[in-house]
Amino acid sequence: MSKRLGRQTVALSDPPRLRGWAAVGGKKEGEGPLKDCFDKISEDAYFGEQSWEKAETRMLRDCFSLACDKAKLPPSKLDYIFSGDLLNQCISSAFAMRDTAVPYFGTYGACSTMAEALSLGAMLIDGGFAANVCAVTGSHFCSAERQYRFPLEYGGVRAPTAQWTVTGAGAVILSRRREGPRLTHVTTGMITDAGITDANNMGAAMAPAAFSTLTAHFADTERDFDDYDAVFTGDLGAVGHDILQSLLEKDGIDTGVKYMDCGMLIYDRKTQGVNSGGSGCGCCASVLAAHILPAMEKGIWNRVLFAATGALMSPTSAQQGESIPSICHAVVIENEV
Amino acid sequence: MSKRLGRQTVALSDPPRLRGWAAVGGKKEGEGPLKDCFDKISEDAYFGEQSWEKAETRMLRDCFSLACDKAKLPPSKLDYIFSGDLLNQCISSAFAMRDTAVPYFGTYGACSTMAEALSLGAMLIDGGFAANVCAVTGSHFCSAERQYRFPLEYGGVRAPTAQWTVTGAGAVILSRRREGPRLTHVTTGMITDAGITDANNMGAAMAPAAFSTLTAHFADTERDFDDYDAVFTGDLGAVGHDILQSLLEKDGIDTGVKYMDCGMLIYDRKTQGVNSGGSGCGCCASVLAAHILPAMEKGIWNRVLFAATGALMSPTSAQQGESIPSICHAVVIENEV
Repeated sequence: MSKRLGRQTVALSDPPRLRGWAAVGGKKEGEGPLKDCFDKISEDAYFGEQSWEKAETRMLRDCFSLACDKAKLPPSKLDYIFSGDLLNQCISSAFAMRDTAVPYFGTYGACSTMAEALSLGAMLIDGGFAANVCAVTGSHFCSAERQYRFPLEYGGVRAPTAQWTVTGAGAVILSRRREGPRLTHVTTGMITDAGITDANNMGAAMAPAAFSTLTAHFADTERDFDDYDAVFTGDLGAVGHDILQSLLEKDGIDTGVKYMDCGMLIYDRKTQGVNSGGSGCGCCASVLAAHILPAMEKGIWNRVLFAATGALMSPTSAQQGESIPSICHAVVIENEV
Repeated sequence: MSKRLGRQTVALSDPPRLRGWAAVGGKKEGEGPLKDCFDKISEDAYFGEQSWEKAETRMLRDCFSLACDKAKLPPSKLDYIFSGDLLNQCISSAFAMRDTAVPYFGTYGACSTMAEALSLGAMLIDGGFAANVCAVTGSHFCSAERQYRFPLEYGGVRAPTAQWTVTGAGAVILSRRREGPRLTHVTTGMITDAGITDANNMGAAMAPAAFSTLTAHFADTERDFDDYDAVFTGDLGAVGHDILQSLLEKDGIDTGVKYMDCGMLIYDRKTQGVNSGGSGCGCCASVLAAHILPAMEKGIWNRVLFAATGALMSPTSAQQGESIPSICHAVVIENEV
């Protein structure tokens, strides 16, 4: 009966399908390399609302509605929503979903939330508990800055290793059906702590978690980079991307050009002033829905490993001198070819 | 293949067993009605640590270890941990579990987290994805007060409807085996918002969520209060308990003495100065592990409905004038008789 492959991976026996997805972005994301890929771009930081937190809530809600529309599935047909975000007590998710009338599971995986939500949703469908599940998450630069760092008006100088929280959301609807890309494997992360204490260097803190989950995935599935058309990490940025690549090379693994980081794809680092790249729950969630899944639909990639990374710290833990525990959850998405 | 009963409930086909559990409490909890039921009581608020956040982390970690010991299961045999807490970015859970080397799913259901974690863990076992799962959560009066309300030194007067955040943790280990109480049904809450904006009256905000989930559970399962030996809500306190009872009575449902609230059981409201009662993730989690499950072991109750309630707000949402969205997740636990 067990569907487990090794310590961290399960293989789904009747893989659910990705039935529909949507990505919503902010103004800066609408000026980056993926500008034409979003389903909706806001012209400003407010999304028509009066606070950044309400803007984030509106963005999540819009993204959820767009995904339902594109999947041709009304919310009343959803069995569960899995959602979470970076705001204290995950308020943007809860407020965005409060009028949906769908059974709701709040998840917290920091920037790994999309992969965590997809993992749990896919297992509930494969296990016979649900027919349709939505995974939705997002982040907002302004609400994150004031919560985690400084008031925006202060205009603090950013470290070269710092990342830029993506204003964006992604939503994916998984269904028990016979069409669309399949979610075949779930590799669940263990919490990893490499002792990094610099909250301006999340890439370095999270790269060991990505390394841990990728090597577990390859060991559990007896696969390697060659078995995938593309491998994505969530939001390591350029700094974390290079650290992960070095860690893998030390193990004799050549990632080649197949390995990409969503935090490097969403912005033009040369012209957009984002230092190491994008971060936030909305980073890999929106890149998945705006870029990866549409490319899979076109047959550019047929088998993808999506490994979202998250830093499980808070301003309080940083102030108390703690290092940064991190996690990485991975899922395999493949076309039936 | 579907295991769904109605919109919000699933019936598990091969119900997992509650294999072991533990409860840890603070000093005040060790002076209340359940004082002899905890596995461990701290003599002060610090649990041997230097900050309240680290104390909360230590408490969760101790509770987890005790549950593993009592279940005679080393952490290396656990397939997943589900954990979450009230602190911003759920740091006490993440820091408590960072050295366990167990695949980790962060959950956020505010004070409903124990039922959410049990729900997801039970479904993953029943679906064949795991053999052993731990659900663990807790809360700490001092860390919650300074995050949500006032510095403790300020000594703010508490409203009569206010509740006292429990310093306590509960951990339950679910396993695929043939002994122990079974977790047979999962009823997942929808987010409910009755428009309450008073953050000092969480009982009133959460009672409608409990009403929604209980009535959904009874409709989905074609059961009623008579089918249970006892029904517990999580932390409505005396105020919310009475509101829920009134809502049910309006629907012609007489709860009788079977209906109890964990927030009323953990303290002596006459002598312990807790106003409406206990609250926090650790409230129903520790009452479950310290009181409900031991009573089931003794055969005092054989079929219990455990309905944990959570308020999905934050200080920021309250400051922005938002009302309080709430949720209630319920699970059925029964002895094989």
